[in-house]
Amino acid sequence: MKRKPHKPENLDKPSKPILGITMGDPAGIGPEVIAKALAQTALRRICIPLVIGSYDVMQRTVKQLKLNLTVEVVKGHATKSGAGHLFVLDPLERPIGPFKPGVAAPETGAASVAFIKKAVHLAQLGCIDGMVTAPINKEAMHMAGYHYPGHTELLADLTQTPESGMMIIGGPLKIMFVTTHVAIKELPSALTQARIEKGIRLAHLALTSLFGIRKPRIGVAALNPHAGEHGLFGDEESRVILPAARAAQAAGILASDPLPADTLFGKTAKGEYDGVVALYHDQGLIPLKMVAFGSCVNLTVGLPIIRTSVDHGTAFDIVGKGIAEPGSLVEAVKLAAVLSQNRSVHVPT
Amino acid sequence: MKRKPHKPENLDKPSKPILGITMGDPAGIGPEVIAKALAQTALRRICIPLVIGSYDVMQRTVKQLKLNLTVEVVKGHATKSGAGHLFVLDPLERPIGPFKPGVAAPETGAASVAFIKKAVHLAQLGCIDGMVTAPINKEAMHMAGYHYPGHTELLADLTQTPESGMMIIGGPLKIMFVTTHVAIKELPSALTQARIEKGIRLAHLALTSLFGIRKPRIGVAALNPHAGEHGLFGDEESRVILPAARAAQAAGILASDPLPADTLFGKTAKGEYDGVVALYHDQGLIPLKMVAFGSCVNLTVGLPIIRTSVDHGTAFDIVGKGIAEPGSLVEAVKLAAVLSQNRSVHVPT
Repeated sequence: MKRKPHKPENLDKPSKPILGITMGDPAGIGPEVIAKALAQTALRRICIPLVIGSYDVMQRTVKQLKLNLTVEVVKGHATKSGAGHLFVLDPLERPIGPFKPGVAAPETGAASVAFIKKAVHLAQLGCIDGMVTAPINKEAMHMAGYHYPGHTELLADLTQTPESGMMIIGGPLKIMFVTTHVAIKELPSALTQARIEKGIRLAHLALTSLFGIRKPRIGVAALNPHAGEHGLFGDEESRVILPAARAAQAAGILASDPLPADTLFGKTAKGEYDGVVALYHDQGLIPLKMVAFGSCVNLTVGLPIIRTSVDHGTAFDIVGKGIAEPGSLVEAVKLAAVLSQNRSVHVPT
Repeated sequence: MKRKPHKPENLDKPSKPILGITMGDPAGIGPEVIAKALAQTALRRICIPLVIGSYDVMQRTVKQLKLNLTVEVVKGHATKSGAGHLFVLDPLERPIGPFKPGVAAPETGAASVAFIKKAVHLAQLGCIDGMVTAPINKEAMHMAGYHYPGHTELLADLTQTPESGMMIIGGPLKIMFVTTHVAIKELPSALTQARIEKGIRLAHLALTSLFGIRKPRIGVAALNPHAGEHGLFGDEESRVILPAARAAQAAGILASDPLPADTLFGKTAKGEYDGVVALYHDQGLIPLKMVAFGSCVNLTVGLPIIRTSVDHGTAFDIVGKGIAEPGSLVEAVKLAAVLSQNRSVHVPT
């Protein structure tokens, strides 16, 4: 994943990473949050943003929001970073055709996949240093014939990645999830030793290869209150979580034994751990949203390319109202910029 | 629960509430955190503290900690509030006898129960306005022949309270717990509609009668990610939580329908809800310890007397080292003082 030797010629500061920002579903709030985020000059200082999406939709959005931005089409992988300009690479090279904002449709679903494919291709060629994704709509993607559960699986498939997972970053917390959309009653069977080991391994991978921490300390959350208090309330700690932690420790990873979840996140926020492995959705997202509501970023770990993502969906209910908050996208761009820089430091060119 | 008309004569400011602070297990960190907390003049401004515990232990602790406090015995319910003085009402009226700090023993267990009984009696008589409890040791209490699971059950028994529960207050959060020390795999069966209704009812009781909020808005947490997303991940929301919330709503309580837990606590911290009903230990304690680590306070709801408590245990491993933090006790005293004032405003005398 190093940048190609011949760089686009018209970069004003070639040291800044070029980030591809995929529009997501054009019927969602992706175009709005992208336009709002790129209207901020702060992001221009740390990266060269290239929107990969529909030119027409982007232009319409900027106009509706009355933003002081000129939308320009970019061909190939050339890109520039002028304040007041928003550069769009449109893989479709034509308008999407009429579609209803806030409604799932095969046309917009297909477009959202085309944007991602293009971004992955550019990243693999080294033309962009990382990609940041605005939300897609799963229903629309399925209507278009792409039967992936979500972004992550599509990206893993496009990049032939055997093992990947989601880390969410918010404020001082970096949290790897072992499970996500699993009912609480299914958790005890879903939490296998293999899955937890994988979570610890991916957390270690993220903290070392992406965040550049040489020996990251990883807090492994317990499942039960007080980590089960020696088996008094639940045995998952001794049965699967501890063995997973021990296997990781044997492999040289500084993973903790299972720790009571109620104090682990606060300790991590204070710097006792570099990252946490959370066992389930709310366990990790309650503390994340307490400390970084509206500015959490998803990071896909394990891919050969850098990919960050907003932590919200297409929000069909508020499309076109001009009230979508760009906070998460701004943070996703910032994180991708930092990770690209880390990588260019760590990978010799 | 109104104060008796004849008040102790030697009060310097009779408008301040008199709070009984039980020592907890003398072999635990109770005496230390009490001494440290009462050395702070701030607490004297808001209440008249009366330690209910062993005079000898209190005196020894103050000496060991080299605190500038004179320990004085108080008889009956008379009490005073002089800076630099620490008044102790000793129900035993004799030293406990030799005991080992940091070790559970029947003598200290029996003493801790005697302190609580005395405090309850004084509160029922109206001689104190509320009680604040330092930690007891369950093992020691059991060794002394008192087979209660904890403080709360002992207090419910002493006051013949049919329905009580635990609320934890930390920073901007007031959280009522439906379950506490229950394994995650037992949750789906432990979370009955009746239990959740009771939790909502007690949250409402606490927020109205103790905190003086006329129409409190209560956020009811869901169990599953995204509140189950219409049954996609778990059905407890529709099967038991929603029916419980609806029953409370029908009874005139401003309870919400089950809400995704990952955003509920942040919303509550911002003031959208006055309190939350949490379904399980970590669900409520993760956000509490994020925003108020070391300063959370337990409040027993449903008792005819005001009772707050520290949120930590006897911490036998650090007894005598002088490193116990009094933060939680300080907050527990402050809260009891506020609640006593609220009550004296609401109850005509």
